[in-house]
Amino acid sequence: MSTFKACEDHSVTFNGWASTGTAELKQWGYHPRPLGPKDVEIEISHCGICGSDIHTMTGGWGAIKEEVIVGHEIVGKVVAAGAESHHKVGDLVGAGAMVDACGECKDCKAGFDQLCLNRAFTYNDLFKDGRGGKTYGGYADRVRVNGEYVFTIPKNISLAEAAPLLCAGVTTYSPLIQYGAGPGKSVGVIGIGGLGHMAIQWAAALKCDEVVAISTSDSKREESKKLGATKFVNSKNEEEMKAAAQSMDIIICTSFAKDADWAALLSLVANNGKMVLLALPETPLSIGAGAFIQRQVSMVGSLIGGKKIVREMLDFASEHNVRPWIETMPMSDCNAAIKHVQEGRPRYRVVMETGAESKF
Amino acid sequence: MSTFKACEDHSVTFNGWASTGTAELKQWGYHPRPLGPKDVEIEISHCGICGSDIHTMTGGWGAIKEEVIVGHEIVGKVVAAGAESHHKVGDLVGAGAMVDACGECKDCKAGFDQLCLNRAFTYNDLFKDGRGGKTYGGYADRVRVNGEYVFTIPKNISLAEAAPLLCAGVTTYSPLIQYGAGPGKSVGVIGIGGLGHMAIQWAAALKCDEVVAISTSDSKREESKKLGATKFVNSKNEEEMKAAAQSMDIIICTSFAKDADWAALLSLVANNGKMVLLALPETPLSIGAGAFIQRQVSMVGSLIGGKKIVREMLDFASEHNVRPWIETMPMSDCNAAIKHVQEGRPRYRVVMETGAESKF
Repeated sequence: MSTFKACEDHSVTFNGWASTGTAELKQWGYHPRPLGPKDVEIEISHCGICGSDIHTMTGGWGAIKEEVIVGHEIVGKVVAAGAESHHKVGDLVGAGAMVDACGECKDCKAGFDQLCLNRAFTYNDLFKDGRGGKTYGGYADRVRVNGEYVFTIPKNISLAEAAPLLCAGVTTYSPLIQYGAGPGKSVGVIGIGGLGHMAIQWAAALKCDEVVAISTSDSKREESKKLGATKFVNSKNEEEMKAAAQSMDIIICTSFAKDADWAALLSLVANNGKMVLLALPETPLSIGAGAFIQRQVSMVGSLIGGKKIVREMLDFASEHNVRPWIETMPMSDCNAAIKHVQEGRPRYRVVMETGAESKF
Repeated sequence: MSTFKACEDHSVTFNGWASTGTAELKQWGYHPRPLGPKDVEIEISHCGICGSDIHTMTGGWGAIKEEVIVGHEIVGKVVAAGAESHHKVGDLVGAGAMVDACGECKDCKAGFDQLCLNRAFTYNDLFKDGRGGKTYGGYADRVRVNGEYVFTIPKNISLAEAAPLLCAGVTTYSPLIQYGAGPGKSVGVIGIGGLGHMAIQWAAALKCDEVVAISTSDSKREESKKLGATKFVNSKNEEEMKAAAQSMDIIICTSFAKDADWAALLSLVANNGKMVLLALPETPLSIGAGAFIQRQVSMVGSLIGGKKIVREMLDFASEHNVRPWIETMPMSDCNAAIKHVQEGRPRYRVVMETGAESKF
């Protein structure tokens, strides 16, 4: 990380809720990096709670060595804008799971800036643009990010509803677009939660022939239909699994158990179809190669989405009236909110409010 | 298998080399099914030895319950042709790893007849066309198959060289075409053997920017260049692996060890690239999902090729002078030939000769 230099703006202190390796967050004051000419400072009104936040704070994706401010479904108001940032003070905007990329490499030019080697994730990462500095996320009063990764919120989307679009929204929208979901295609969605309930809505709005909700919980049967699913398959129900065999061209897998039966899940994919993994489990998968070869099925991962697809997703949500189903809680109750998420209770996304919206 | 009826033509006896569950074959006489109006009978001059033959005869893909005649790289002369077979007696032809499909289903219509639920593999399978009968392969003097799966051998390809094209050839050609190998793409080939030496030649003839041979054996370094590889990577050499990281858009994986390091192999695939599995291992793969998600890499299987792509492949081989490198041995020495293959000695395909060609 040769381009990293410790880089803090001691003229300001941001106040956030920091993790130090457990899911119990503590109030913490810290210094962001100086506002560069391309940067934007956002006063945060809302931040969604993403599964990634919990994997990170509990050390599931690697031990936490010092304070981390998680949160990457960030919405608020621009309170400072660098001269080259293409934003102005007062704009209502959002930022998602990445806040910088080089803009010059093959991946950036192809619209896959989320794969850029010099990308910076929104938290627990370093800026790699030569100016240095750590990234701090949205469980806080403010955030500073590259204006290229700051998105204007369409007027007909509430700030609270906008927040989950920035990660859960684009993470599910991006692979559906990349792999051609639409008329003539059948889409399955494994796991009906924060990501899955968005995937169902996108697939329905994209006019896929079938949108199949796949869950281990019958409690999701009726709700998934309200979200736009045309079918429901309980993956523990052998008869339902058998009836759905080889019927889906694209399956968006948003969650799975450590002991997931991959042969059974792959049996749902149509010949030449795709299983798209969005969830990053903490242990390796064990998969028989026969499932791939005998029916030419693919397994592929998808990682959030680049800035171009975030803009497209926001426009699509605005136009087709796609919104996350949310529960709001005060950010000051973040520890209770995290517990609520860990217990799998939200229907389907918790968005924390700082209270700043009332001043906007 | 409701459409199966025991179905044998007792007016003729074919003579072949049968497996009964070991790699030690024995001479055996058997009755094929009656010649139907769409069927063709071929007097066999040549048959290649494919890895699938050995997996099958040793029970690695399932126990052998009765005599099996393996072999699906079959070349010879038409000696009987049904009225609707579109072939005529005297034609020099080949047959590959499948000998029937329905022709009517979605997969057949899309050119993926190898995925048809009513396909029949060339051996150790049943015809599912309603007429019944078992399939017997090419380690024999004759074979009867559906004429739709009988291919005219281009005049500038010798009968011996044509044989491996029917399985090793199309199995490697098909995914390269399906996934867009050509100018602007870099292709890797893992395993330089019967399949791999064909994949290198196709990728070179398709004018891929780079064709990278990947092997655990430095003995293949020079030969792979003669086949058309632009680079060689020894997958046990950490420096070479590191230098080749993320550089290949498509990797054709023709073989791998039980303890293959999938994280290392997937590290060679470019962002948004594909690892195509052709080899069907007998045990499950253990793969960290991070490799898929962090760089949007796919793993996909590919199964032989449908009849349309076999025809295209033969034309392409004829036009671009692509030929397997072969060693010929008499079919009467099949047990010695199999041992030679099991020891990994051929450069790169053994083709067995019945001696019939001298009479054609």
